[in-house]
Formats: sequence, structure tokens, C-alpha cells
Amino acid sequence: MRSPLDTPVIRAVDPDERALATPFLKSLTRLIRAQDTYGMWEDKSDADLLADFIVTKEQRREIPIIGDPDPDVLWRLQIFYTCVALAIEERSGLLASSTMMMSPEGFGRVVLTTGRLVVLSKTLRDVHRFGFDTLGKLAKAGAKLVDDAIAAIEAYPDAARA
Amino acid sequence: MRSPLDTPVIRAVDPDERALATPFLKSLTRLIRAQDTYGMWEDKSDADLLADFIVTKEQRREIPIIGDPDPDVLWRLQIFYTCVALAIEERSGLLASSTMMMSPEGFGRVVLTTGRLVVLSKTLRDVHRFGFDTLGKLAKAGAKLVDDAIAAIEAYPDAARA
Repeated sequence: MRSPLDTPVIRAVDPDERALATPFLKSLTRLIRAQDTYGMWEDKSDADLLADFIVTKEQRREIPIIGDPDPDVLWRLQIFYTCVALAIEERSGLLASSTMMMSPEGFGRVVLTTGRLVVLSKTLRDVHRFGFDTLGKLAKAGAKLVDDAIAAIEAYPDAARA
Repeated sequence: MRSPLDTPVIRAVDPDERALATPFLKSLTRLIRAQDTYGMWEDKSDADLLADFIVTKEQRREIPIIGDPDPDVLWRLQIFYTCVALAIEERSGLLASSTMMMSPEGFGRVVLTTGRLVVLSKTLRDVHRFGFDTLGKLAKAGAKLVDDAIAAIEAYPDAARA
């Protein structure tokens, strides 16, 4: 039996929990749960829901990049950028729309726009291997895309509102 | 035998020929011929090459919009917007890039950008039936998209060059 003293005192220091508490990952888990029509994931923790977003360097190397990307990985990619778009909307008050183009070979492009402004434009490569080393890196990557988009909106306010 | 008098004197009045002489349709036929790797279309006239872009109202009604759009119609859609992007580049001197997203059901979106500016954003519907009543309407539709894009670049020169 574990004594109460065995549980870590400063739980917030755990990097995964800290990541899960960021606005980006909170929003991402909320988006994922919104797609849980049949309540099959109700018992899953947030960390469980995001588990497939975590792909270590070793795992990445083992994923072949031939053939079509797994539909699940495309779904994760889609929900990741939807989450970025949502965060941009929340922070800027402007509608952000997302266009994603994907070749069957796993190359593609994603474009997020508000008004006439391109707030994010990214070439996607090796989509088969889409993932992040840790939850912290996932949260950081999302937040950075949002920050960059907000900076673009501030730099070109007229085009963003056109 | 036809006497020379039977041939129309003012040939340039023929609306198809006038359309084929527009910069947009010249560019479109050039793009199509550029894809003719094996020289199979060498004997075809420009009007022949563009024939499949012409879909009359009656023909349109007969095309079912269930199932995946024909790959040929997707190819025409792609080359049409590529041609628009190319014309924008020629007139503005700015690189235009195109992102097209298509659901298997024939709904989609096309976004053309220069720098950080969205110069064209269009929702695509009933892609199965993509086509124009006449060559003149095809030329006009293309030229209008180009004109609108150029107007946007002039309105937001900084974002277009970002």
C-alpha cells in the first residue's frame, strides 16, 4: 500500500500535466471530445485522448512513408489545425477558415485565413509521421502557430478584416 | 463546292474565335498543351482542346452529382485555377500559389494567395458539373477572377508583398 507521503508533493511540476493545463491542449481535448458522439471516450483521461499525438523520434523512424497516410493521422492533423484556427478566432475575434490540401503520398499544404489575410501557410511533409515528442512540445507548437497568426493580424489589420 | 463568297467576310466577329484570342484562353490552351507529353493533341485546334470546358445548361442538368467527380473534371478545375494564378503572376509580378481542397462528394474550396494576401477564395459546389456555357463565358469568368485578384493586390499592397 502506498503511504500518502509517496505521492509527489508538487504535482504541478509534472511536465505532462503542465502541458495539459495550457489553453491549447485544453481546447484540443475539448475538440476531440466534441467528436465523441457515442460517448466511447468518456472514461479516457485527457492524456489518453492525446496519446496518439505523441510520436517519439524512434517511433517516427519506424513509420514507413510509403503508401497513403493512415486516416487517423489525417484526422489528427485536421483537428490540430482546427484547434489552431479556433484559438486564433478566440484571441482575435475574427473568423478563421482553414483549407488543407493533401496528396495521397502525404505531402500537402495547409492555409489558414482571416478575411483576406493568410495567417498561416505551411507545407506538410511526411504526414504519415505527424506527431510530437511530448505533450509539452505539442502545446508549444500549437501556441506558436497561434502567436504567429495573431502577430500577422496585428501587422495587417486591414487585410485581416477585409 | 463552296464558293469563296460563302465564307464569312468578318471572321473576327465569330464569338468563339474572339474568345480564343483573349489572353486568358490563350494562356489556358498553352497550359493544356504543356501537359501534352506525348504529342497526342498536336493536331487538335485550341477550340478542340477547350471543348470539354463547355457544358451547356441542358448537359449540366444531365450530369448526376452523386459519387466522386470525374478525374477529368478535377483536372480541368485545377488547370483553370492554375491559369488564373499564372495570369495574376504575369500582371502583378508576384508569385501566386494555389491551394485546392476537395471532398470526394464534389464540394471544395480554392484559395489563391500572393504573399500574405488572399487574392481569391471560392467555395466550389457541384464540381461534377464544372463548365461554362460558351468559350466567351469561360474567358470572361477567368478574366474576372484575375481582375478581382489584381484589385485586391492594389488595395492591400503590403500584405500582398509580405
